[in-house]
Amino acid sequence: MRNSRDAFHIAVPARDLDAAALFYNKMLGCPVARRYADRVTFDFFGDQLVCHYSPDDPVVESPTLYPRHFGVTFREREDFDALLRLVNLRKVPVFQEVRSRFGGTAEEHSTVVLVDPTGNLLEFKHYTDPRMMY
Amino acid sequence: MRNSRDAFHIAVPARDLDAAALFYNKMLGCPVARRYADRVTFDFFGDQLVCHYSPDDPVVESPTLYPRHFGVTFREREDFDALLRLVNLRKVPVFQEVRSRFGGTAEEHSTVVLVDPTGNLLEFKHYTDPRMMY
Amino acid sequence: MRNSRDAFHIAVPARDLDAAALFYNKMLGCPVARRYADRVTFDFFGDQLVCHYSPDDPVVESPTLYPRHFGVTFREREDFDALLRLVNLRKVPVFQEVRSRFGGTAEEHSTVVLVDPTGNLLEFKHYTDPRMMY
Amino acid sequence: MRNSRDAFHIAVPARDLDAAALFYNKMLGCPVARRYADRVTFDFFGDQLVCHYSPDDPVVESPTLYPRHFGVTFREREDFDALLRLVNLRKVPVFQEVRSRFGGTAEEHSTVVLVDPTGNLLEFKHYTDPRMMY
Amino acid sequence: MRNSRDAFHIAVPARDLDAAALFYNKMLGCPVARRYADRVTFDFFGDQLVCHYSPDDPVVESPTLYPRHFGVTFREREDFDALLRLVNLRKVPVFQEVRSRFGGTAEEHSTVVLVDPTGNLLEFKHYTDPRMMY
Amino acid sequence: MRNSRDAFHIAVPARDLDAAALFYNKMLGCPVARRYADRVTFDFFGDQLVCHYSPDDPVVESPTLYPRHFGVTFREREDFDALLRLVNLRKVPVFQEVRSRFGGTAEEHSTVVLVDPTGNLLEFKHYTDPRMMY
Amino acid sequence: MRNSRDAFHIAVPARDLDAAALFYNKMLGCPVARRYADRVTFDFFGDQLVCHYSPDDPVVESPTLYPRHFGVTFREREDFDALLRLVNLRKVPVFQEVRSRFGGTAEEHSTVVLVDPTGNLLEFKHYTDPRMMY
Amino acid sequence: MRNSRDAFHIAVPARDLDAAALFYNKMLGCPVARRYADRVTFDFFGDQLVCHYSPDDPVVESPTLYPRHFGVTFREREDFDALLRLVNLRKVPVFQEVRSRFGGTAEEHSTVVLVDPTGNLLEFKHYTDPRMMY
Repeated sequence: MRNSRDAFHIAVPARDLDAAALFYNKMLGCPVARRYADRVTFDFFGDQLVCHYSPDDPVVESPTLYPRHFGVTFREREDFDALLRLVNLRKVPVFQEVRSRFGGTAEEHSTVVLVDPTGNLLEFKHYTDPRMMY
Repeated sequence: MRNSRDAFHIAVPARDLDAAALFYNKMLGCPVARRYADRVTFDFFGDQLVCHYSPDDPVVESPTLYPRHFGVTFREREDFDALLRLVNLRKVPVFQEVRSRFGGTAEEHSTVVLVDPTGNLLEFKHYTDPRMMY
Repeated sequence: MRNSRDAFHIAVPARDLDAAALFYNKMLGCPVARRYADRVTFDFFGDQLVCHYSPDDPVVESPTLYPRHFGVTFREREDFDALLRLVNLRKVPVFQEVRSRFGGTAEEHSTVVLVDPTGNLLEFKHYTDPRMMY
Repeated sequence: MRNSRDAFHIAVPARDLDAAALFYNKMLGCPVARRYADRVTFDFFGDQLVCHYSPDDPVVESPTLYPRHFGVTFREREDFDALLRLVNLRKVPVFQEVRSRFGGTAEEHSTVVLVDPTGNLLEFKHYTDPRMMY
Repeated sequence: MRNSRDAFHIAVPARDLDAAALFYNKMLGCPVARRYADRVTFDFFGDQLVCHYSPDDPVVESPTLYPRHFGVTFREREDFDALLRLVNLRKVPVFQEVRSRFGGTAEEHSTVVLVDPTGNLLEFKHYTDPRMMY
Repeated sequence: MRNSRDAFHIAVPARDLDAAALFYNKMLGCPVARRYADRVTFDFFGDQLVCHYSPDDPVVESPTLYPRHFGVTFREREDFDALLRLVNLRKVPVFQEVRSRFGGTAEEHSTVVLVDPTGNLLEFKHYTDPRMMY
Repeated sequence: MRNSRDAFHIAVPARDLDAAALFYNKMLGCPVARRYADRVTFDFFGDQLVCHYSPDDPVVESPTLYPRHFGVTFREREDFDALLRLVNLRKVPVFQEVRSRFGGTAEEHSTVVLVDPTGNLLEFKHYTDPRMMY
Repeated sequence: MRNSRDAFHIAVPARDLDAAALFYNKMLGCPVARRYADRVTFDFFGDQLVCHYSPDDPVVESPTLYPRHFGVTFREREDFDALLRLVNLRKVPVFQEVRSRFGGTAEEHSTVVLVDPTGNLLEFKHYTDPRMMY
């Protein structure tokens, strides 16, 4: 369990800040904390996500999940399911459909991967055994 | 404030898993949650950090803070200072020395940037006004 | 999630303080924190509500929900249902019966609107997806 | 102390949604949760504030603090002071300068009143004795 | 909700300290915090109960529930049921069997009253609507 | 530490309900949760206090602290001092002035005893070592 | 309930630190906080476990549960069951299969005992009535 | 940070249960949860300590701190100091006086070791940097 008073923060490139705001705020429902000419910051599920304006960031034709992605591991299954429902209702771009991984092992978990307009990959997970979250 | 039962997770490349373990566990004091042949997972200040074995990840001669980095924004100044003390005592590689930014504005904060063996940049921050954390 | 140590406070007019006390304390079950000649303060579901004596406040024949109302958004459905049960048992004046809004979208929620003796409107809500509470 | 999982919500008129966003987000630092054609919702110090587009809302020449205003009562003095600092740094419009009220009584508290572009009044308070918050 | 860092404390007479310890510790499972020649203190469901040695306290033939008794109001039904189970398994003296009161009103609650060796009455309650706990 | 979701409750006699409301609400600042013909219930520092109308309760000429009293043990010294300040400002009837007891032992604590209009004694305490609270 | 900011710590002998790490980290999923030449420290279900290198610690042919063992008492049954599932999936060495003890009494609980490579015994428990945890 | 709803438990031998109760309850102030013919259980700083009656447990002439001891690592310095004060006031047997270890490194901490009547060693610690607690 983490200290709820601190916040993780992550900065990622965004080729288009309006597209980023559309994806993170309108689709994923993350409040917009601040917007400047060169960046937008979001309250991303309680942590801080910063999209830096990077118009020259190369377009990745085929993004891969490894080695670079980020996301949230939910403690409760109902929060994972609420995210899935949101993805369906708002037609959030999916990179990899929801699936179960490592079934029959202690690491068993459900996972879904989304992709933002710049090609950053977001993975949301839920573990059958919450002690495996780390 | 975030929901302390969920965890953020982030995956980054590591050209050498032993070097990653040395940096994150021995230097920064992050517990090693799991180690597999192709990755190590850490309890990174309460969130999950995954270092994926990426031997072919290009060596970046001059990494830049933007657009890609991650880290922790501390709620309490004493936690930021404890991190600085740890960096000094264990000689953790520093990319950008501690400095104050945006002094005299509401966004005023202290920041220090570290660099891991693969060149990933980690920023730790503390805001004078905690409401600016997002 | 909010900081539970701070309190929201809201001041609204009351043409009759006894009627206000009857409505908020006897009917809605909000403890009376303080009563002065010109106001009554209530612990309104954990926040502070102040009814200011305003005998000359105009009587609104047809109050409208927009743009001005206040209330509580419950995190748990059972707390919303407990409020409904209270409204029924104590025959609290209802301005708009419980209904579901925006069904089939992410903003889907249940809502009921009450009206106090001065015509102030109180809306109580519960969202299917708690991330839509804001 | 209140239940931190529920949220208070309040709806107020806004003659101009852009001006409201400038005031609440850029000045007071409240994240923008959602924006529609007819309203903007903010995470207002942990609670929900909804500004409803009301272009015909009458301009009030001399708004009065009573009977209608809203705001936050801080539990810790340092949070009240941080709000004052923010007001000064960003030159947030002040309706009534910070002052101490009821000195020498149990109800003693500090208070400052701000005014938003539509004339809604916001009061921020801190009580010497936190039990008097209600 | 109350501040979990403070403790309520109550002092009651005990004609026999051993009998009091048998009742509160062995039967009700309250840890014995301290024992002196003239008193025993218990961690009574998280609060402090002090039994003062009062050998001359008059024996009350027919104790009455009003105006003087104390006890715990449980937030969760399962905690009330666990108390009932404990009472049955350990044959704790019951003054008034479990019953439901005020059915069909907002104040509806379940209640059971126990009696300690000195005749002090303990009431344990659970309200259908937790907001009625006060 | 206790479970903050449950509440202690205590019922005491009151020869005069108005006098009880004056003492507990107006002087001590405890919100009035409910008032019926035969009782008033207060949110007494987070727990429930019920004053039962007992007009025939005998007047005790010289009440004694033992064996029967109740009150709050504060975890933080500043909360004890705030209570003292309230007592002074509002001239709450004091039965025993603030004093230090058991100085030089582990049980060292400060204590003040108040008396309500019916003669019930209320003790407020603060221990130098919080582990001695029980 | 305990203070979540403090940690219990326990030091036990380990004849082989690699074997200890295999057992506590790989099998039980406890993060490795620190490793030195003479010890390994684990985040053992939130507390600190230290395995001290003790190559000459005598091999106990028939370890006994009394008087020396340690472990965790889970508040929620589902956490106990998750531990059992982990034990089965990863084939953690069991000293005493899961069983129910003291059925029909207030002390009723489920228990399972594991054994680490050095012969230290670990007991995990869950009580039907959580007040019996102590 | 650990889950405050679970409890660590540890069982240790006691050659004399009365002596154990004297040490843990009267001296260290740990409430006695339960006492049976063959054991006493204590609420040991929020966790469960069980002293099993072991009259034949060998008397250790010179107990050693390694590899076997247990205790509490305090998060706050003031809690460590309160323990020291208790030890002095009640003359709790000390095995190793308070000292500072690893000064000038990240692992710097204060420590004191007590010894119970059976020779079990208890270490209480406080780290300058709380992240080193594990």
